[in-house]
Amino acid sequence: QTCSILFNRKFTQLPHLAGTEQNLRYAEQIKKEWMEFGLDSVEMVPYDVLLSYPNKSEPNYISIIDQLGNEVFNTSLAEPVPEGYENVSNIVPPYSAFSAKGQPEGDLVYVNYGRTEDFFQLQREMNINVTGKIVIVRYGKIFRGNKVKNAMLAGAKGIIMFSDPADYWAADVQPYPDGWNLPGGGAQRGNVLNLNGAGDPLTPGYPAKDYTYRFSLEDGVGLPKIPVHPIGFHDAVNLLKNMGGQIPPNNWKGALNVSYRIGPGFTDDFKSQKVRMNIHTDNQVTRIYNVIGRIRGALEPDRYVILGGHRDAWVFGGIDPMSGAAVVHETVRSAGKLLSKGWRPRRTIIFASWDAEEFGLVGSTEWAEDNTKLLQERAVAYINADSAIEGMYTLRVDCTPSLHTLVYDLTKQIASPEDGEEGVSLYESWHKRDNWTNDRDAPRISKLGSGSDFEAYFIRLGIAAGRARYTKNKKTERYSSYPVYHSVYETFEIVEKFYDPSFKRLQAVAQVRGGLIFLLADSQLLPLDVNQYADSLRKYAQSITQLAQKHPEEMKMYEVSFDSLFSAVENFTVAARDLHECLQTLDRADPLQVRIMNDQLMYLERAFIDPLGLPGRPFYRHVIFAPSSHNKYAGESFPGIYDALFDIQNSADPEKAWEEVKRQISIAAFTVHAAAMTLTPPA
Amino acid sequence: QTCSILFNRKFTQLPHLAGTEQNLRYAEQIKKEWMEFGLDSVEMVPYDVLLSYPNKSEPNYISIIDQLGNEVFNTSLAEPVPEGYENVSNIVPPYSAFSAKGQPEGDLVYVNYGRTEDFFQLQREMNINVTGKIVIVRYGKIFRGNKVKNAMLAGAKGIIMFSDPADYWAADVQPYPDGWNLPGGGAQRGNVLNLNGAGDPLTPGYPAKDYTYRFSLEDGVGLPKIPVHPIGFHDAVNLLKNMGGQIPPNNWKGALNVSYRIGPGFTDDFKSQKVRMNIHTDNQVTRIYNVIGRIRGALEPDRYVILGGHRDAWVFGGIDPMSGAAVVHETVRSAGKLLSKGWRPRRTIIFASWDAEEFGLVGSTEWAEDNTKLLQERAVAYINADSAIEGMYTLRVDCTPSLHTLVYDLTKQIASPEDGEEGVSLYESWHKRDNWTNDRDAPRISKLGSGSDFEAYFIRLGIAAGRARYTKNKKTERYSSYPVYHSVYETFEIVEKFYDPSFKRLQAVAQVRGGLIFLLADSQLLPLDVNQYADSLRKYAQSITQLAQKHPEEMKMYEVSFDSLFSAVENFTVAARDLHECLQTLDRADPLQVRIMNDQLMYLERAFIDPLGLPGRPFYRHVIFAPSSHNKYAGESFPGIYDALFDIQNSADPEKAWEEVKRQISIAAFTVHAAAMTLTPPA
Repeated sequence: QTCSILFNRKFTQLPHLAGTEQNLRYAEQIKKEWMEFGLDSVEMVPYDVLLSYPNKSEPNYISIIDQLGNEVFNTSLAEPVPEGYENVSNIVPPYSAFSAKGQPEGDLVYVNYGRTEDFFQLQREMNINVTGKIVIVRYGKIFRGNKVKNAMLAGAKGIIMFSDPADYWAADVQPYPDGWNLPGGGAQRGNVLNLNGAGDPLTPGYPAKDYTYRFSLEDGVGLPKIPVHPIGFHDAVNLLKNMGGQIPPNNWKGALNVSYRIGPGFTDDFKSQKVRMNIHTDNQVTRIYNVIGRIRGALEPDRYVILGGHRDAWVFGGIDPMSGAAVVHETVRSAGKLLSKGWRPRRTIIFASWDAEEFGLVGSTEWAEDNTKLLQERAVAYINADSAIEGMYTLRVDCTPSLHTLVYDLTKQIASPEDGEEGVSLYESWHKRDNWTNDRDAPRISKLGSGSDFEAYFIRLGIAAGRARYTKNKKTERYSSYPVYHSVYETFEIVEKFYDPSFKRLQAVAQVRGGLIFLLADSQLLPLDVNQYADSLRKYAQSITQLAQKHPEEMKMYEVSFDSLFSAVENFTVAARDLHECLQTLDRADPLQVRIMNDQLMYLERAFIDPLGLPGRPFYRHVIFAPSSHNKYAGESFPGIYDALFDIQNSADPEKAWEEVKRQISIAAFTVHAAAMTLTPPA
Repeated sequence: QTCSILFNRKFTQLPHLAGTEQNLRYAEQIKKEWMEFGLDSVEMVPYDVLLSYPNKSEPNYISIIDQLGNEVFNTSLAEPVPEGYENVSNIVPPYSAFSAKGQPEGDLVYVNYGRTEDFFQLQREMNINVTGKIVIVRYGKIFRGNKVKNAMLAGAKGIIMFSDPADYWAADVQPYPDGWNLPGGGAQRGNVLNLNGAGDPLTPGYPAKDYTYRFSLEDGVGLPKIPVHPIGFHDAVNLLKNMGGQIPPNNWKGALNVSYRIGPGFTDDFKSQKVRMNIHTDNQVTRIYNVIGRIRGALEPDRYVILGGHRDAWVFGGIDPMSGAAVVHETVRSAGKLLSKGWRPRRTIIFASWDAEEFGLVGSTEWAEDNTKLLQERAVAYINADSAIEGMYTLRVDCTPSLHTLVYDLTKQIASPEDGEEGVSLYESWHKRDNWTNDRDAPRISKLGSGSDFEAYFIRLGIAAGRARYTKNKKTERYSSYPVYHSVYETFEIVEKFYDPSFKRLQAVAQVRGGLIFLLADSQLLPLDVNQYADSLRKYAQSITQLAQKHPEEMKMYEVSFDSLFSAVENFTVAARDLHECLQTLDRADPLQVRIMNDQLMYLERAFIDPLGLPGRPFYRHVIFAPSSHNKYAGESFPGIYDALFDIQNSADPEKAWEEVKRQISIAAFTVHAAAMTLTPPA
């Protein structure tokens, strides 16, 4: 606990953006301390990847210009720096990493959150074409890269994203430093790529080493072709207040004192004014560093349990990622202590401090690419350690179904960090605050989406994965993420003053993440629950069927049936039950038999991987879990079917669209059958 | 030996084309006998796949027509049936399976073997455009499907393939039944697909089960869009003899008494005559059956050693495949005997009688797709058992480098089957007849190409694989394959009278195939030689570099370097040596340590698999070995680089073409590095 406070204070004093000298210094410091803690080995692993920085001599900003081209309003060039950090240099101003360069001029169109459905509504109901326009959207609901992609597809020549208080203010909370809301001058940095798991945009599928072939920028994966820029709401008001055009539906209105008119362009009085974006951000191949530490397994050195989280931050990273990095550090320290007392886990444990997560999960993905063969054959589980805290309410866990039982068992052994809950377990505290559903009496566990470093391990490679953090009350707190997300206001102090003054919540998260690692690495039999996977598959099959049944006539006309999927799930369920029965009678004194069973458990997650990938997304290969194509943040079950159903509303050829649904059902049924086969006795 | 004769006689009396009732009967018979031999289990595994048959009421043939459209010559509708088989029904006439239907009319153009270089020569040196023409090519040198693809790419509207005596007659040998040469009325059946490993054309990537989504015929993989038909040389003479146009270069001339003029069309006297193809072949989804037998491994039931060969034949299959199927049968019988004496192998052995190999390796590929997860995790090796004999000279082995040493060790224990070589080992007999090269004193072993059922196991899944058969003297015998290949003359008698009267050669091949299976299944440590892989990789890297160095100026201009590949090979070499040193000191009494080492050995071949596949060939995933895009039969090393170099001569944009070479070198270097990592101690 003390260590974790110290770590957080020490590693959040200076900006440590990926690719900068300061982030290398922190890496060296972490390496040094991990060695001192007693790991068997610690190494720095560099890659040369495409990053993106503002041009220091030509700042990015957005202007309103009059008919002579004079700038009558300019957005701010930086956020007001929080007290105590005034003399810090190298604070990168808010920008959209990997934005195209350019100075497009034109009329604004407001498109709500910039979701697929927002653009549909704009085009179909409001009859507005954004070709050649600059769109302005509010942050929230979906990953910003999806907003940019939607704007490009709609023909926009630029996109501005702003933080609306409706989405980044909690009720009755003051802006930082008096509270933890986002000040009006704050803005959200972030990359605007559509990588779909590719990692470094220039070396998709392969690690970005010295000898690696690099695509040209034109052929790079997921790079937007239009300028993009983020602003805070003080600036947004100035762009929005004079907008003309239709009055939007209520659910398009945020909380600013403007009408949120759609445009295009300004009202009559300001008709001659246009908006110009001035974006000079540069892409450049830059060296990044992962720090990789290891404890060699005593009996099964070729089985890997991985705890990884990123180190790079947009600015100080008080929450994202250092509240998580502190947890990794703490876990390494504990493991080192145990090692010095003669303990050694059955399996190998790997600790990772990833670089360049903020630029598209790049450090973790390159390392996964570099080690792809080893991971495929040997990795038991990957536990992610990004921000340990995003709220003050209770635990949040997203993980693969086979880890559910382990998470429940473990959290029953951990104390609640909440005041007034002495003697109450984390499980009970969590359960009380976030029960799963009406039909299941257990704390809620969610599906993994994407947006953090587990992506390549889980969605590309099929390694059982999970993440845990402290979160808000999602029933009462409607804002997206936490208000100061990716702003300069993510300081050590915001955690110390508001999110976790006693550091007990961080400690609880550390106990969950660390506990998972220790149990996965040291149990003779892997603590993976295959029956739980069966239950989840059934639930997912029911839910995707319900989604399809919104189109009962087409289901009939095109003879769409989910029977094969349910039959596969049934098959899987029986196989899972039989496997767990076998485990009861296993001779645990026979090392080969134990290994064979553990292999079956370990490789189950791998069985859901389709090397052909999801349609158009070759690096998203998990047939059961992946983000939809419309929002990288949200994990969908049966994402191939989900996307095919989504596309029906957008298809000029419904028969073809329904054929794709049928094809995806068939792939899902096959995959579940194939996974069931891996659970039956091996010969 | 006796069993093998009986088997061959019994299973070659009736035609047993894939999808016919007779082939199902043979499957049932094999299943029954394997059960009687004592396997632990035998099952029939059906799939519903796209096959292709001549239309029974509208025969396929080719006509010469006069200007009124009258047929002045028609090719024969069937081959003269060999003595003793006159009353056999269901002999399918010669046809090109999966030909498009149609009756194209036009002028003929003769294009030698129809290779990429032949079409280049035709277009660039002879200035002949085949758009709208019917091309006629001789069989041989490359896979017939590649000829068809080349004809389509060149714009031909039909393609005729004939067997030229230059390619299907051995010197001083009589045509069957007096010798083993191809009679003038014989023709070569065969599929003309370009599947590139996809298996069933309608279900690429997934097993063709009842619930599986099927593409429409238009979207099927590799189906030719033009009519195709094979003829014998008696018919070919009639099509060729009056052809006009240029006199071809000498290496375009076959051994018929015609001038081999290029065309287009006939000489002046016959100018008004055209050629019409009449092709009515039907594609239809048809049920096929693999027979799968198993012996459960005593200690490692989850490790699979596979012996598989096909059962379906174009007609009787006297050589292809029954000479090979007999070997599988014999091996099952031997294994059964051992089992009855209390023996049980350490690992599981799987025996397979594949269906529909002749239609594109379909049965074996569907089963590989069905069991893909199990095979990826558990398969140690796949040994192929197609035709055991294609000549009378010596042994031929194609296998992955890690099996070389095992093949040599094993053949030293087997007796030569040749008369007058009593007391001589198969190794010595083989070595004497086919020494590798000047710089290596050992019998030649070749790279695996494709064209038989190991393809999905080796090239898609990365399972160590090999094949062995008896072959001709390739220095003196210039004909392609064996003369009666895929004709009605492949009878039991041709083997009994000419190829192997004592059945000793078949027995030797059985000992090689069976011996490999038994040693792979029962050795405590897997008998795979990783050092040999290192040696081979170095040789391949040198040879691909030499190929590139045919373009020294471009190599310099585009900065093409193979250094990264050689550095990876060096890395691999050191890792391989270290691994074999570790094996020396391994504690063989520790079952977990033995398993860990064996896993490293087993997964080495898997490490060469790139899930992204080779460019445009998603199911060819082995970075070290695959056929080139220009000839499915020949195995190339570093096929990605090879194809990229091949494409340089054909590219309108040399810079782009060389960029692709560089990209492929980078992928090869990465893959070899990644494979080397799997050989180093696991943590």
